[in-house]
Amino acid sequence: MAEIEENHSREDVRQHLREVQALLSRHRLVEGLVHRQAMPRHDLVENLVHKQHEAALRGKLDSLHAADIAYILEALPVEDRLFVWDLVKAERDGEILLEVSDAVRETLIEAMDSSELVAAAEQLDADELADLAPDLPQEVIDGVFKTLSVEEREQLRAAMSYPEDSVGALMDFEMVTVREDVTLEVVLRYLRRFEELPDHTDQLFVVDRAEHLKGVLPLNRLLVTDPETEVGAVMDPGRATLQPHHEAQAAASAFERYDLVSTPVVDDDNRLIGRVTVDAVVDFIRSRSEEERLSQAGLKEEEDIFAPMWDSVRNRWSWLAINLVTAFIASRVIGAFESSIEKLVALAALMPIVAGIGGNSGNQTIIMIVRAIALGQVDPRSARKLYRKELGVALINGLMWGGLLGLIAWWLYRSIPLGLVMTAAMTLNLLLAATVGVTIPLYRFRHGRDPAVGSSVMITAVTDSGGFLIFLGLATLFLV
Amino acid sequence: MAEIEENHSREDVRQHLREVQALLSRHRLVEGLVHRQAMPRHDLVENLVHKQHEAALRGKLDSLHAADIAYILEALPVEDRLFVWDLVKAERDGEILLEVSDAVRETLIEAMDSSELVAAAEQLDADELADLAPDLPQEVIDGVFKTLSVEEREQLRAAMSYPEDSVGALMDFEMVTVREDVTLEVVLRYLRRFEELPDHTDQLFVVDRAEHLKGVLPLNRLLVTDPETEVGAVMDPGRATLQPHHEAQAAASAFERYDLVSTPVVDDDNRLIGRVTVDAVVDFIRSRSEEERLSQAGLKEEEDIFAPMWDSVRNRWSWLAINLVTAFIASRVIGAFESSIEKLVALAALMPIVAGIGGNSGNQTIIMIVRAIALGQVDPRSARKLYRKELGVALINGLMWGGLLGLIAWWLYRSIPLGLVMTAAMTLNLLLAATVGVTIPLYRFRHGRDPAVGSSVMITAVTDSGGFLIFLGLATLFLV
Repeated sequence: MAEIEENHSREDVRQHLREVQALLSRHRLVEGLVHRQAMPRHDLVENLVHKQHEAALRGKLDSLHAADIAYILEALPVEDRLFVWDLVKAERDGEILLEVSDAVRETLIEAMDSSELVAAAEQLDADELADLAPDLPQEVIDGVFKTLSVEEREQLRAAMSYPEDSVGALMDFEMVTVREDVTLEVVLRYLRRFEELPDHTDQLFVVDRAEHLKGVLPLNRLLVTDPETEVGAVMDPGRATLQPHHEAQAAASAFERYDLVSTPVVDDDNRLIGRVTVDAVVDFIRSRSEEERLSQAGLKEEEDIFAPMWDSVRNRWSWLAINLVTAFIASRVIGAFESSIEKLVALAALMPIVAGIGGNSGNQTIIMIVRAIALGQVDPRSARKLYRKELGVALINGLMWGGLLGLIAWWLYRSIPLGLVMTAAMTLNLLLAATVGVTIPLYRFRHGRDPAVGSSVMITAVTDSGGFLIFLGLATLFLV
Repeated sequence: MAEIEENHSREDVRQHLREVQALLSRHRLVEGLVHRQAMPRHDLVENLVHKQHEAALRGKLDSLHAADIAYILEALPVEDRLFVWDLVKAERDGEILLEVSDAVRETLIEAMDSSELVAAAEQLDADELADLAPDLPQEVIDGVFKTLSVEEREQLRAAMSYPEDSVGALMDFEMVTVREDVTLEVVLRYLRRFEELPDHTDQLFVVDRAEHLKGVLPLNRLLVTDPETEVGAVMDPGRATLQPHHEAQAAASAFERYDLVSTPVVDDDNRLIGRVTVDAVVDFIRSRSEEERLSQAGLKEEEDIFAPMWDSVRNRWSWLAINLVTAFIASRVIGAFESSIEKLVALAALMPIVAGIGGNSGNQTIIMIVRAIALGQVDPRSARKLYRKELGVALINGLMWGGLLGLIAWWLYRSIPLGLVMTAAMTLNLLLAATVGVTIPLYRFRHGRDPAVGSSVMITAVTDSGGFLIFLGLATLFLV
């Protein structure tokens, strides 16, 4: 905390950004003058001014928290970003690389040579190193590996072996452990030998000689209990444990549900191997919801807004391709009814309404179902209830909005049959949307896949093609 | 933690749910027998079996954490839910009401009478009571108010006065304060007089006689420092403070950025009035991302999946109405070109592709821009950069995918002019999508509104109507 200047609110971080930008533009101004007047770069006065601005910038950066520097780097165009990055103290490189987004991290790492990267990586703990490792060149990882102790190597190997969305990936190794049979007085004396305790130490882990977890001793309890008491008498039995292969999502739920600050991670033999802290969980929750939002629009990853255009094109590529295919299929459905449209051109104007509302309604259904599944509220027995309810909602909406649209169609084209076909098509398409909107996520869930992924494209594909088919089909049967 | 049975992972919670469901269905079976055989309800044997199941269920519920009971209540159909709710110990009602979703809370509160509600509310702290108050009848609030101490009344009034998305709404009042001029030894003795420390106490707040915040004393530092030291010598200056009128979002950013567990809240005079803890922040982050996801599909609030159909219809109503209006406008654009479509019916089949891909591409742009705004990476200078980049991406995508579609149109209808019109329309619509996709969120941001709200509907409206207009317009000019 000592590192943080002034208040915490977001406005302050923006303020830091503005200050850095101001310093940068003064710096550029000088540089511009130097260039324009074709004066030698080493001109003494100019150089002095130059150095002053650099020093001011450097001082500003030194006063900032690593997370704030990361924020500023992300908000700067690539050229300024690298200039600022050069001014950051080398020993802070590691922690800042951890904080920036993947896309920006790439640009920073590209600008560093191997020895700089090794130096940066050496500043980090094993679990942090494991987070960074996928972005580092192999030679850098090898280089860092040599500098680690045997224990750290073991931890790094372990940390790197866990899949991205597992508890193992959230875990760190900074636990303080005590024995069951000592008094709190001894524990207090033991703690006083530390320079400082690891961040987020809200409890000590009680282990036996073979590192088996016997329980946890919350600091809060340590502080309010008579020091003569033995650890074993006041510890919690430590049933609130995770294993490294558990899903990170499960850890997040546990933290959220039980308001935890840290929790021990044990192996199959109940041996303590690490801990998960709430800051890692908060980062996970945030990045997970970020990912979901991006993937809903078919964006593979966050974009560095100052990255080259071509990177963005590739990021957005596949989604447009998929949508092109589904749009093409819908277009062929319409193509099959071209003769009907030729005879009654009003159909062309009305058909997108049927398709569009179906898509909206289907997406609403899917979001409710995906949410219910995520909350674990769906089991085989409730599936039928879900269908009944969604179909009921669709029927009401279909008759209501379809009825309104039927009236409008009648009013526009003075044809009662056209109005009736409109109402019927709308109702049927909403029923189709509800059926598919329940079925897709349920099907994916039963087959062990993420119910949310791609559901939105699929429902839109079905309600588009289906909507055109139903509306043009009914029209061909009854009107043409 | 002592309350939590076994492990923490989500599977376990599901396991609890299954056990409760099994007990419930055994209970229902007995009840069914009783009814079917037209036996008197007070028949001794049946009644005993009945009582046994109830006792087993009660025991199970008593062993569960409040959050887990909340989860189970949410996953049960209304009838079972209320049966289980009746079996929960009355003194736990309050904490469970806090944990359930708004929709489910409503069903539970409806089933309770005033005196039960007052009893439940009395169990809660002032800040918790403030969270619950909007859902409680006025007479209950009045009833509880009478039982509070003067200080608690003051806290409740304060907590209820803060708007929902402010720091004040996240705040609680359970701080432990110490004076600057005492030694750590005195602090340790003082703490030992507590029965227990408030949850999430990772630091003590150092205040003067007038409650002005002088700094914070992290427990971790208290534990590693020589007890003879004075508090003033080791405390942090406590610059990491919030004020109750700050946005909750700013608190969330600060917690995420600086990995906090708790932080003091002060008034304009720097007087300590409360604290925010990480569990409140986690809940806020989670519910905020939940809200965003729902609002993207035009769902006003989370739905109780077992709620009456009519509630769902109302929840989804307005969104469909808005989309109906935009779809109607798009339909009228098509209507204006009916004579062109009559002459060249292929237009009807191809036009939804142009509109659809425009909508997808525009939504991708909006998500990137909204994200950049949310991260504070957008300022007046970068606006032009954003336009240039998004237009560039749109041009590449338009020529590429538009070119492909042009080829397909030519292949389907053997008309080179039609293919060219298709390519041109697609490119123009993607450029339109990019322009509007940057403009809408920027405009809303500059006028102090949430850039995300409603952006998706607006972009789709523009790219639909615009796509039809561009494609049919070009076709009318060059083909018909």
